[in-house]
Amino acid sequence: MITSVTNQRVKRVVQLNKKPAQRKKESVFIVEGTKMFLEAPERDLEEVYISEDFLGKIGETGVAEIQGKLGRCGYEVVSGEVFAKMSDTQSPQGILCVARQMQYSLEEMTERAGTPLFLILENLQDPGNLGTIMRTGEGAGVNGVIMSNNTADIYNPKAIRATMGSIYRVPFLYTPDISGTVGWLRGKGIGIYAAHLKGKKCYDECDYRKPAAFLIGNEGNGLTEETAGMADYYIHIPMAGKLESLNAAVATALLVYEAAGQRRRG
Amino acid sequence: MITSVTNQRVKRVVQLNKKPAQRKKESVFIVEGTKMFLEAPERDLEEVYISEDFLGKIGETGVAEIQGKLGRCGYEVVSGEVFAKMSDTQSPQGILCVARQMQYSLEEMTERAGTPLFLILENLQDPGNLGTIMRTGEGAGVNGVIMSNNTADIYNPKAIRATMGSIYRVPFLYTPDISGTVGWLRGKGIGIYAAHLKGKKCYDECDYRKPAAFLIGNEGNGLTEETAGMADYYIHIPMAGKLESLNAAVATALLVYEAAGQRRRG
Repeated sequence: MITSVTNQRVKRVVQLNKKPAQRKKESVFIVEGTKMFLEAPERDLEEVYISEDFLGKIGETGVAEIQGKLGRCGYEVVSGEVFAKMSDTQSPQGILCVARQMQYSLEEMTERAGTPLFLILENLQDPGNLGTIMRTGEGAGVNGVIMSNNTADIYNPKAIRATMGSIYRVPFLYTPDISGTVGWLRGKGIGIYAAHLKGKKCYDECDYRKPAAFLIGNEGNGLTEETAGMADYYIHIPMAGKLESLNAAVATALLVYEAAGQRRRG
Repeated sequence: MITSVTNQRVKRVVQLNKKPAQRKKESVFIVEGTKMFLEAPERDLEEVYISEDFLGKIGETGVAEIQGKLGRCGYEVVSGEVFAKMSDTQSPQGILCVARQMQYSLEEMTERAGTPLFLILENLQDPGNLGTIMRTGEGAGVNGVIMSNNTADIYNPKAIRATMGSIYRVPFLYTPDISGTVGWLRGKGIGIYAAHLKGKKCYDECDYRKPAAFLIGNEGNGLTEETAGMADYYIHIPMAGKLESLNAAVATALLVYEAAGQRRRG
């Protein structure tokens, strides 16, 4: 059992929670909680840490699923104090893992999709929004989430929590060249729809039963001109009242669910 | 100019930011930032505090609107250190106000609405979700947001920020008796739709052009059985993948925008 907060492995987890650059360098990330442990693909789990308390309670919960997976993956027990140090949450459940980052390619994402439905996020800054978008994307059946390099880190602990497990299931990637990526998608016959305050068409007046990708911009500033310029269609979401904009995750949800609804109804 | 962080007025603002009970007792709340100051109805502003720095910059910004409103409302200048103490944000803009809480009645909300569209929130816990729901509600043209007493405080600084000004424009109230309130609304001919995992009808298969209210439950546990039992219709939002639920603000957005879309299209 690890009982010292200065243990090197403990320090590593703390760094991985705090520093995006460290996560990138090691190509791993931290997931926390029973649900995230159970949903993680076993092959991607590198290390599992559980608190002394959690170990004691496993028997009581009677969750054979947890016991089985712990048995197969192996785990390290740490003291309560050490776990509190490692955890990113205020009331930790007592289980966290170092997991390997996912690797997806644009080609693969596109080939595997029947009729592609993609999200392209440019410079989104809020990790909670980002995680919520991935969660909603799974619900709507999105085939992939493409992010510009200056978008928040999806492996940020807050983003991961907000995905509610979707991070394991929705393909995603970061691109250093969003114009190039959008160009490539257009070349594959995927219609590019920009959510834009100047969009003339209402978001529910387009036909998304064809291959489609939605461009979503930064929370405060929207899309850059260059990226917006690459869209085939400009759409807007009608707003009553004096509102200037909707929350980015809400706007994205309305678009992907409109597409999902059209595809469902056929 | 106030330069002491132990000044009684400074202490009061700190308490009002932190304590829901204090806000309720005094029937006021704190709003922060230029946008929230400019959008606040003048009659509801009790006190305005600006930092020394902000005062110095007002001339530079050339925003006559700010100067005019400050002139009409009056304001107190505080040192940078004092402002940092009063502020709920990490990078304060330098302006905050004590504003009077709004008072709305169910009768008024219902009478003023042409074809009522209401949201009824039971025990929602996340202030950010709550504020986002109010923001989205304004966009969709919701006539009122009704919350059970055990829902998070809409006057919480995080909730206020998330409303992006909608708090001034969307009528809302808390009810100690959600069953009684739902019963009253039903009596007025308003159809009650419960978002429920067991709902058989898809959310886009109902006719919301008639008076409608959506029941939204707690983030983790959904609606209580008692409240769910009062609904006329049970609806669900289809989810692809292995997702158990959508974020509460996202789910609410899909429902109110479906209603808004039906009403827009006629």
